[in-house]
Amino acid sequence: MGLPATLLALAIILAAAKLGGSVAIRFGQPGVLGELVAGLVAGNLGLLGWHGLDFVEDDGLVGALAELGVILLLFQVGLESTTRQLIQVGRSALAVGCLGVAVPFGLGWVASACLLPQQSGLVHLFVGATLTATSVGITARVLADLGQSGSPTARVILGAAVLDDVLGLVMLAVVTGLIQAADRGASLEMAPLLWIVGKAVVFLVGAMLLGTWLAPRLFRRAATLRGGGVLLGIALAFCFAMSWAASKAGLAPILGAFAAGLILEAAHYTPFTEQGEYPLEQLVHPVTSFLAPIFFVFMGFRVDLSQFADLHVVGLASALTLVAVLGKVVAGLGAFGPGVSRLAVGVGMIPRGEVGLIFANVGLGLAIAGQPVIDASTFSAVVMMILVTTLVTPPLLTWAIARAAVGPAARGS
Amino acid sequence: MGLPATLLALAIILAAAKLGGSVAIRFGQPGVLGELVAGLVAGNLGLLGWHGLDFVEDDGLVGALAELGVILLLFQVGLESTTRQLIQVGRSALAVGCLGVAVPFGLGWVASACLLPQQSGLVHLFVGATLTATSVGITARVLADLGQSGSPTARVILGAAVLDDVLGLVMLAVVTGLIQAADRGASLEMAPLLWIVGKAVVFLVGAMLLGTWLAPRLFRRAATLRGGGVLLGIALAFCFAMSWAASKAGLAPILGAFAAGLILEAAHYTPFTEQGEYPLEQLVHPVTSFLAPIFFVFMGFRVDLSQFADLHVVGLASALTLVAVLGKVVAGLGAFGPGVSRLAVGVGMIPRGEVGLIFANVGLGLAIAGQPVIDASTFSAVVMMILVTTLVTPPLLTWAIARAAVGPAARGS
Repeated sequence: MGLPATLLALAIILAAAKLGGSVAIRFGQPGVLGELVAGLVAGNLGLLGWHGLDFVEDDGLVGALAELGVILLLFQVGLESTTRQLIQVGRSALAVGCLGVAVPFGLGWVASACLLPQQSGLVHLFVGATLTATSVGITARVLADLGQSGSPTARVILGAAVLDDVLGLVMLAVVTGLIQAADRGASLEMAPLLWIVGKAVVFLVGAMLLGTWLAPRLFRRAATLRGGGVLLGIALAFCFAMSWAASKAGLAPILGAFAAGLILEAAHYTPFTEQGEYPLEQLVHPVTSFLAPIFFVFMGFRVDLSQFADLHVVGLASALTLVAVLGKVVAGLGAFGPGVSRLAVGVGMIPRGEVGLIFANVGLGLAIAGQPVIDASTFSAVVMMILVTTLVTPPLLTWAIARAAVGPAARGS
Repeated sequence: MGLPATLLALAIILAAAKLGGSVAIRFGQPGVLGELVAGLVAGNLGLLGWHGLDFVEDDGLVGALAELGVILLLFQVGLESTTRQLIQVGRSALAVGCLGVAVPFGLGWVASACLLPQQSGLVHLFVGATLTATSVGITARVLADLGQSGSPTARVILGAAVLDDVLGLVMLAVVTGLIQAADRGASLEMAPLLWIVGKAVVFLVGAMLLGTWLAPRLFRRAATLRGGGVLLGIALAFCFAMSWAASKAGLAPILGAFAAGLILEAAHYTPFTEQGEYPLEQLVHPVTSFLAPIFFVFMGFRVDLSQFADLHVVGLASALTLVAVLGKVVAGLGAFGPGVSRLAVGVGMIPRGEVGLIFANVGLGLAIAGQPVIDASTFSAVVMMILVTTLVTPPLLTWAIARAAVGPAARGS
């Protein structure tokens, strides 16, 4: 088996993460930016003619550990928020989430219609849809790096991002259905669409209600178990079970992990802390600090810088990136409530990421009259947009949060 | 990709581990026995006609996480010992290690010759060799469960197990070479054998010398890095790099992880603890308590209880198990030094495990004149021996250590 290669890959990734993170911090940036860039550099050494690290990118186990890392990261972020806090920002998050889908979708449609005039209207619809879903992993990590995970701004971003993902998924289902119907020359069938939407809604509402009822009972039982590491073990089992349930409902597993963390409140596991166990956040932290950097370095690894050589792709990518950034910053204006920075909310929702990639991948597989909806150069442009939005968010968000923190104080003096 | 299935498998494994561990502890047994039995039960529900959990055993990612778990466990055990302590017990461990290879090898040969009289002498040699290598994972976990990881007895066991693995590997190389030569009708070539032995020796001596020189320098540099989780990240990178190097030297990766832990002393990372970082043992512990139970439950999962229905296999397995237990208990008599329990040393070396399985697998692939050296029923018997030695060790070792603790006090009164 390939275990030895995986071990070497992990050693390289962890060392790169810590080196890159340290350099970023010295430049006043969050550590996650350094991890991304370290992966990007290490993953593109092939352009300089050295392919000694190519095995890292191809290692399936490293990829899976990276996925586990982002799942545990969202679990930890959920642990640091509470359902009550999320409901408090609910209307604000609802406004931001809806705007955050509508504005990038509209702008993306227009941009695609201007730059790809020869393509069908359904392609423009599809390009617009790839711009909707926020990838909250990067933002969650930046907020954690800045010690802002529990702030009102963070809660609005996370709530809006959950909505985004659900709305984006609905959008993808609708657009895919339209394209498939157009390809068959048939009319759109509503039943499968409603089924997808229904599953997602049932999961989110059901998970929150059931989980809130189940979690205290589960952990009260678990507290009677003997042996070491029971709290961490049962909490992680709960996190993984919820992630699995989310993926069964057609949602991203990270949404389930976030919901699991959200449901678990310190009050549920007081029997453990009374027995001298550390709080759950403190137990999850070393596990996350091992696995999450793997995700960010690996994300950098998978970027193919050679795509940047094609000017047509770069032009399209620039337009998409502009639209992606603008759309979410405008959406941030919908935020309200005490202590919420509108600019920081908008900036925090800039990163696309795995959901955008999933969209683009679906597009590669769809065709109208034999022509793929998303061709190779459009796909490259989408990947580049994801890369740039991911790379610009850490410094921009750091700046926006610092500005928000300074602003009221300056006004107060 | 199969990530959702893996998430469900992890949730089931973690819940089973904590439930099983708790039951074992209530019966006065170490938690690891409960984890093994929980996996064994869950993995054999197919015998009752329910195959709903069969996907867990086939999940490659779970298997790889289990391997990472045992690697990190041995790293943690290594962290809790120091090179100096191991050298102190060096002569005692040397005596136990050599006896622990010679006695089971001789007894296994005799048992095979009596029970499989129709087979060639090389088969008996091979069966003897499968009985030599100690699988230290179970013992390490039992010692940790009992809070005895740092005791003189534990150090003798670990030192002897390292020796065992090296000597066992040499034995495997020699016997394999003899069989291949016999199959070709040629004489044995010494060069490849010497090469294998040389690599192992160079790795162990080189790793200890180089690591002892490198580690303080590496961690002094690392302490200047900024950002969270640097100590844990760099320490894990070191552990994984050493595990990879061990496997490159033809040794088990867990040996490299143990050596990495052994090399790292608290003195190497004082710059971190002075900056307010937790000690390394405390940081590694949650990671291990997440991943190590996966190894033990998964080991139980892979046992196929239906093999126990074949009486011929059960007979051979009983003989091998008897020889395996007896051989190591006799080897324990070679132990000496203050605070060392000879019985506990012998019992601690009973478990075979992955190394024995690797041997048996090699045997399945070797043939003399078209006949496989290890046939299916001999293989099943070896697997059963591994299962039984693994299952009896936790209760026996708990008893032996309790007896040793009571013994001197009773004599003192």
